[in-house]
Amino acid sequence: MKRQERRSDCPISVALEIFGDTWTLLIIRDLMFKNKHTFSEFVASEERIATNILSSRLQQLERSGIIRREKLDRRVFYTLTKKGLDLLPMVVEMIAWSAKYDPRTAADRVFVARLRKDKRRLIDDLREALRHDRAAIRT
Amino acid sequence: MKRQERRSDCPISVALEIFGDTWTLLIIRDLMFKNKHTFSEFVASEERIATNILSSRLQQLERSGIIRREKLDRRVFYTLTKKGLDLLPMVVEMIAWSAKYDPRTAADRVFVARLRKDKRRLIDDLREALRHDRAAIRT
Repeated sequence: MKRQERRSDCPISVALEIFGDTWTLLIIRDLMFKNKHTFSEFVASEERIATNILSSRLQQLERSGIIRREKLDRRVFYTLTKKGLDLLPMVVEMIAWSAKYDPRTAADRVFVARLRKDKRRLIDDLREALRHDRAAIRT
Repeated sequence: MKRQERRSDCPISVALEIFGDTWTLLIIRDLMFKNKHTFSEFVASEERIATNILSSRLQQLERSGIIRREKLDRRVFYTLTKKGLDLLPMVVEMIAWSAKYDPRTAADRVFVARLRKDKRRLIDDLREALRHDRAAIRT
Protein backbone atom coordinates (compact mmCIF):
# COMPACT_ATOMS: atom_id res chain seq x y z
CA MET A 1 0.00 0.00 0.00
CA LYS A 2 1.39 3.41 -0.90
CA ARG A 3 1.87 5.96 1.83
CA GLN A 4 -0.79 8.36 0.56
CA GLU A 5 -3.37 5.58 0.53
CA ARG A 6 -3.05 4.86 4.24
CA ARG A 7 -5.54 6.42 6.60
CA SER A 8 -2.83 6.80 9.22
CA ASP A 9 0.32 5.08 10.50
CA CYS A 10 -1.47 3.91 13.65
CA PRO A 11 -0.55 0.22 14.11
CA ILE A 12 -4.20 -0.76 14.67
CA SER A 13 -5.38 1.13 11.60
CA VAL A 14 -2.61 -0.44 9.49
CA ALA A 15 -3.61 -3.94 10.63
CA LEU A 16 -7.31 -3.25 9.96
CA GLU A 17 -6.53 -2.12 6.44
CA ILE A 18 -5.08 -5.59 5.83
CA PHE A 19 -7.56 -7.88 7.61
CA GLY A 20 -10.32 -5.59 8.94
CA ASP A 21 -13.26 -7.29 7.28
CA THR A 22 -15.56 -10.19 8.08
CA TRP A 23 -13.78 -12.78 5.90
CA THR A 24 -9.99 -12.50 5.84
CA LEU A 25 -9.37 -13.85 9.33
CA LEU A 26 -11.59 -16.86 8.56
CA ILE A 27 -9.12 -17.87 5.83
CA ILE A 28 -6.29 -17.43 8.33
CA ARG A 29 -8.30 -19.52 10.82
CA ASP A 30 -8.65 -22.31 8.23
CA LEU A 31 -4.89 -22.26 7.66
CA MET A 32 -4.11 -22.18 11.39
CA PHE A 33 -6.57 -24.60 12.89
CA LYS A 34 -8.27 -26.61 10.18
CA ASN A 35 -5.34 -27.82 8.13
CA LYS A 36 -6.90 -26.35 4.98
CA HIS A 37 -4.61 -25.22 2.19
CA THR A 38 -6.53 -25.04 -1.08
CA PHE A 39 -9.16 -22.83 -2.66
CA SER A 40 -11.74 -25.62 -2.68
CA GLU A 41 -11.08 -26.37 1.00
CA PHE A 42 -11.63 -22.70 1.96
CA VAL A 43 -14.82 -22.54 -0.09
CA ALA A 44 -16.19 -25.57 1.75
CA SER A 45 -16.05 -23.84 5.18
CA GLU A 46 -19.39 -23.52 6.92
CA GLU A 47 -19.55 -19.71 6.62
CA ARG A 48 -19.80 -20.18 2.83
CA ILE A 49 -17.49 -17.50 1.56
CA ALA A 50 -18.26 -16.39 -2.02
CA THR A 51 -15.62 -17.45 -4.55
CA ASN A 52 -14.96 -13.89 -5.76
CA ILE A 53 -14.43 -12.66 -2.19
CA LEU A 54 -12.16 -15.62 -1.47
CA SER A 55 -10.07 -14.93 -4.60
CA SER A 56 -9.59 -11.28 -3.75
CA ARG A 57 -8.78 -11.98 -0.09
CA LEU A 58 -6.20 -14.64 -1.02
CA GLN A 59 -4.52 -12.19 -3.39
CA GLN A 60 -4.55 -9.48 -0.74
CA LEU A 61 -3.09 -11.83 1.88
CA GLU A 62 -0.36 -12.90 -0.55
CA ARG A 63 0.44 -9.25 -1.42
CA SER A 64 0.62 -8.42 2.28
CA GLY A 65 3.11 -11.26 2.82
CA ILE A 66 0.82 -13.17 5.19
CA ILE A 67 0.35 -16.25 3.01
CA ARG A 68 2.46 -17.95 0.36
CA ARG A 69 1.11 -19.49 -2.84
CA GLU A 70 2.86 -22.63 -4.03
CA LYS A 71 2.27 -25.01 -6.92
CA LEU A 72 2.86 -28.67 -6.27
CA ASP A 73 1.84 -31.35 -8.78
CA ARG A 74 -0.28 -28.80 -10.65
CA ARG A 75 -2.26 -28.01 -7.49
CA VAL A 76 -2.09 -24.64 -5.74
CA PHE A 77 -1.44 -24.68 -1.99
CA TYR A 78 -1.55 -21.76 0.39
CA THR A 79 0.51 -21.68 3.57
CA LEU A 80 1.15 -19.07 6.25
CA THR A 81 4.42 -17.17 6.11
CA LYS A 82 6.29 -16.19 9.29
CA LYS A 83 4.35 -12.92 9.22
CA GLY A 84 1.09 -14.88 8.98
CA LEU A 85 2.09 -17.30 11.74
CA ASP A 86 2.79 -14.30 13.94
CA LEU A 87 -0.92 -13.46 13.88
CA LEU A 88 -1.46 -16.53 16.06
CA PRO A 89 -1.38 -14.73 19.46
CA MET A 90 -3.95 -12.18 18.24
CA VAL A 91 -6.25 -14.89 16.86
CA VAL A 92 -5.93 -16.89 20.07
CA GLU A 93 -6.95 -13.80 22.08
CA MET A 94 -9.95 -13.40 19.79
CA ILE A 95 -10.99 -17.00 20.48
CA ALA A 96 -10.51 -16.49 24.23
CA TRP A 97 -12.73 -13.40 24.17
CA SER A 98 -15.54 -15.08 22.22
CA ALA A 99 -15.33 -18.22 24.34
CA LYS A 100 -15.74 -16.04 27.43
CA TYR A 101 -18.66 -13.92 26.22
CA ASP A 102 -20.51 -15.95 23.64
CA PRO A 103 -22.74 -18.56 25.29
CA ARG A 104 -23.19 -20.51 22.06
CA THR A 105 -19.55 -20.57 21.08
CA ALA A 106 -18.30 -23.61 19.21
CA ALA A 107 -14.81 -23.11 20.67
CA ASP A 108 -13.28 -26.46 21.53
CA ARG A 109 -13.51 -27.06 25.30
CA VAL A 110 -10.11 -28.65 25.64
CA PHE A 111 -8.62 -25.75 23.70
CA VAL A 112 -10.32 -23.17 25.94
CA ALA A 113 -9.23 -25.02 29.08
CA ARG A 114 -5.61 -25.00 27.87
CA LEU A 115 -5.97 -21.34 26.97
CA ARG A 116 -7.00 -20.48 30.52
CA LYS A 117 -4.30 -22.61 32.05
CA ASP A 118 -1.25 -21.61 30.04
CA LYS A 119 -1.78 -19.35 27.03
CA ARG A 120 1.86 -18.92 26.15
CA ARG A 121 2.51 -22.66 26.07
CA LEU A 122 -0.59 -23.23 23.93
CA ILE A 123 0.61 -20.63 21.41
CA ASP A 124 4.10 -22.17 21.32
CA ASP A 125 2.61 -25.65 20.74
CA LEU A 126 0.34 -24.38 17.97
CA ARG A 127 3.22 -22.59 16.28
CA GLU A 128 5.30 -25.75 16.38
CA ALA A 129 2.45 -27.84 14.97
CA LEU A 130 1.98 -25.35 12.14
CA ARG A 131 5.66 -25.55 11.24
CA HIS A 132 5.34 -29.32 10.85
CA ASP A 133 2.17 -28.82 8.86
CA ARG A 134 3.97 -26.60 6.37
CA ALA A 135 6.85 -29.03 6.11
CA ALA A 136 4.41 -31.88 5.44
CA ILE A 137 2.97 -30.09 2.42
CA ARG A 138 6.40 -29.81 0.83
CA THR A 139 7.31 -33.48 1.26
CA MET B 1 -27.89 -11.29 16.85
CA LYS B 2 -30.39 -14.07 16.38
CA ARG B 3 -29.16 -17.59 15.90
CA GLN B 4 -30.33 -17.93 12.29
CA GLU B 5 -28.45 -14.76 11.35
CA ARG B 6 -25.06 -16.09 12.43
CA ARG B 7 -22.79 -17.55 9.79
CA SER B 8 -21.54 -20.10 12.29
CA ASP B 9 -20.80 -20.52 16.01
CA CYS B 10 -17.04 -20.44 15.37
CA PRO B 11 -15.58 -18.06 17.99
CA ILE B 12 -13.54 -16.19 15.36
CA SER B 13 -16.53 -15.78 13.06
CA VAL B 14 -18.68 -14.55 15.97
CA ALA B 15 -16.07 -11.93 16.91
CA LEU B 16 -15.70 -10.80 13.28
CA GLU B 17 -19.44 -10.32 12.98
CA ILE B 18 -19.15 -7.78 15.83
CA PHE B 19 -15.96 -5.89 14.97
CA GLY B 20 -14.75 -7.32 11.65
CA ASP B 21 -14.61 -4.09 9.70
CA THR B 22 -12.09 -1.30 9.18
CA TRP B 23 -13.61 1.13 11.70
CA THR B 24 -15.00 -0.47 14.86
CA LEU B 25 -11.66 -1.29 16.46
CA LEU B 26 -10.50 2.30 15.87
CA ILE B 27 -13.29 3.49 18.18
CA ILE B 28 -12.20 0.89 20.72
CA ARG B 29 -8.61 2.11 20.28
CA ASP B 30 -9.71 5.71 20.99
CA LEU B 31 -11.44 4.54 24.17
CA MET B 32 -8.48 2.40 25.26
CA PHE B 33 -5.48 4.54 24.45
CA LYS B 34 -6.54 8.08 23.61
CA ASN B 35 -8.82 8.94 26.48
CA LYS B 36 -11.62 9.83 24.05
CA HIS B 37 -15.21 9.40 25.17
CA THR B 38 -17.49 11.54 23.02
CA PHE B 39 -18.82 11.50 19.48
CA SER B 40 -16.98 14.70 18.56
CA GLU B 41 -13.71 13.29 19.94
CA PHE B 42 -14.06 10.11 17.83
CA VAL B 43 -14.88 12.15 14.72
CA ALA B 44 -11.71 14.19 15.21
CA SER B 45 -9.41 11.15 14.92
CA GLU B 46 -6.95 11.30 12.06
CA GLU B 47 -8.56 8.46 10.06
CA ARG B 48 -11.59 10.74 9.62
CA ILE B 49 -14.45 8.34 10.19
CA ALA B 50 -17.72 9.45 8.56
CA THR B 51 -20.38 10.52 11.07
CA ASN B 52 -22.98 8.03 9.79
CA ILE B 53 -20.48 5.15 10.09
CA LEU B 54 -19.50 6.32 13.58
CA SER B 55 -23.14 6.49 14.68
CA SER B 56 -23.92 3.00 13.46
CA ARG B 57 -20.74 1.51 14.95
CA LEU B 58 -21.40 3.12 18.34
CA GLN B 59 -24.92 1.67 18.35
CA GLN B 60 -23.62 -1.74 17.36
CA LEU B 61 -20.93 -1.66 20.07
CA GLU B 62 -23.54 -0.68 22.66
CA ARG B 63 -25.90 -3.45 21.50
CA SER B 64 -23.05 -5.95 21.72
CA GLY B 65 -22.33 -4.87 25.30
CA ILE B 66 -18.82 -3.63 24.51
CA ILE B 67 -19.42 0.03 25.30
CA ARG B 68 -21.77 1.88 27.63
CA ARG B 69 -23.54 5.14 26.79
CA GLU B 70 -23.99 7.57 29.68
CA LYS B 71 -25.42 11.05 29.94
CA LEU B 72 -23.68 13.45 32.30
CA ASP B 73 -24.53 17.16 32.40
CA ARG B 74 -26.42 16.81 29.12
CA ARG B 75 -23.34 15.39 27.38
CA VAL B 76 -23.12 11.80 26.14
CA PHE B 77 -20.05 9.81 27.17
CA TYR B 78 -19.04 6.38 25.97
CA THR B 79 -16.97 4.03 28.10
CA LEU B 80 -15.81 0.44 27.74
CA THR B 81 -17.69 -2.22 29.67
CA LYS B 82 -15.90 -5.21 31.22
CA LYS B 83 -16.54 -7.07 27.94
CA GLY B 84 -14.97 -4.18 26.02
CA LEU B 85 -11.99 -3.94 28.37
CA ASP B 86 -11.42 -7.64 27.81
CA LEU B 87 -10.57 -6.90 24.17
CA LEU B 88 -7.36 -5.30 25.44
CA PRO B 89 -5.12 -8.40 25.06
CA MET B 90 -6.28 -8.88 21.46
CA VAL B 91 -5.74 -5.22 20.59
CA VAL B 92 -2.30 -5.28 22.21
CA GLU B 93 -1.36 -8.32 20.08
CA MET B 94 -2.53 -6.44 17.01
CA ILE B 95 -0.26 -3.51 17.90
CA ALA B 96 2.66 -5.89 18.52
CA TRP B 97 2.18 -7.48 15.11
CA SER B 98 2.01 -4.18 13.24
CA ALA B 99 4.95 -2.77 15.17
CA LYS B 100 6.97 -5.83 14.13
CA TYR B 101 6.08 -5.84 10.45
CA ASP B 102 5.19 -2.30 9.49
CA PRO B 103 8.33 -0.19 9.02
CA ARG B 104 6.39 3.08 9.15
CA THR B 105 4.37 2.24 12.24
CA ALA B 106 3.46 5.09 14.54
CA ALA B 107 3.41 2.69 17.51
CA ASP B 108 4.92 4.39 20.55
CA ARG B 109 8.49 3.15 21.08
CA VAL B 110 8.27 3.00 24.84
CA PHE B 111 5.02 1.05 24.53
CA VAL B 112 6.56 -1.44 22.10
CA ALA B 113 9.64 -1.85 24.30
CA ARG B 114 7.41 -2.63 27.28
CA LEU B 115 5.37 -4.99 25.12
CA ARG B 116 8.49 -6.99 24.25
CA LYS B 117 9.73 -7.01 27.80
CA ASP B 118 6.61 -7.99 29.74
CA LYS B 119 3.33 -8.15 27.84
CA ARG B 120 1.22 -9.42 30.71
CA ARG B 121 2.33 -6.64 33.04
CA LEU B 122 1.69 -4.03 30.34
CA ILE B 123 -1.85 -5.34 29.85
CA ASP B 124 -2.50 -5.36 33.60
CA ASP B 125 -1.24 -1.76 33.89
CA LEU B 126 -3.38 -0.62 30.96
CA ARG B 127 -6.45 -2.30 32.43
CA GLU B 128 -5.86 -0.60 35.76
CA ALA B 129 -5.40 2.80 34.10
CA LEU B 130 -8.64 2.33 32.16
CA ARG B 131 -10.53 1.57 35.38
CA HIS B 132 -9.37 4.88 36.83
CA ASP B 133 -10.24 6.61 33.57
CA ARG B 134 -13.82 5.37 33.81
CA ALA B 135 -14.09 6.34 37.44
CA ALA B 136 -12.83 9.85 36.60
CA ILE B 137 -15.67 10.40 34.13
CA ARG B 138 -18.26 9.65 36.78
CA THR B 139 -16.88 12.02 39.39
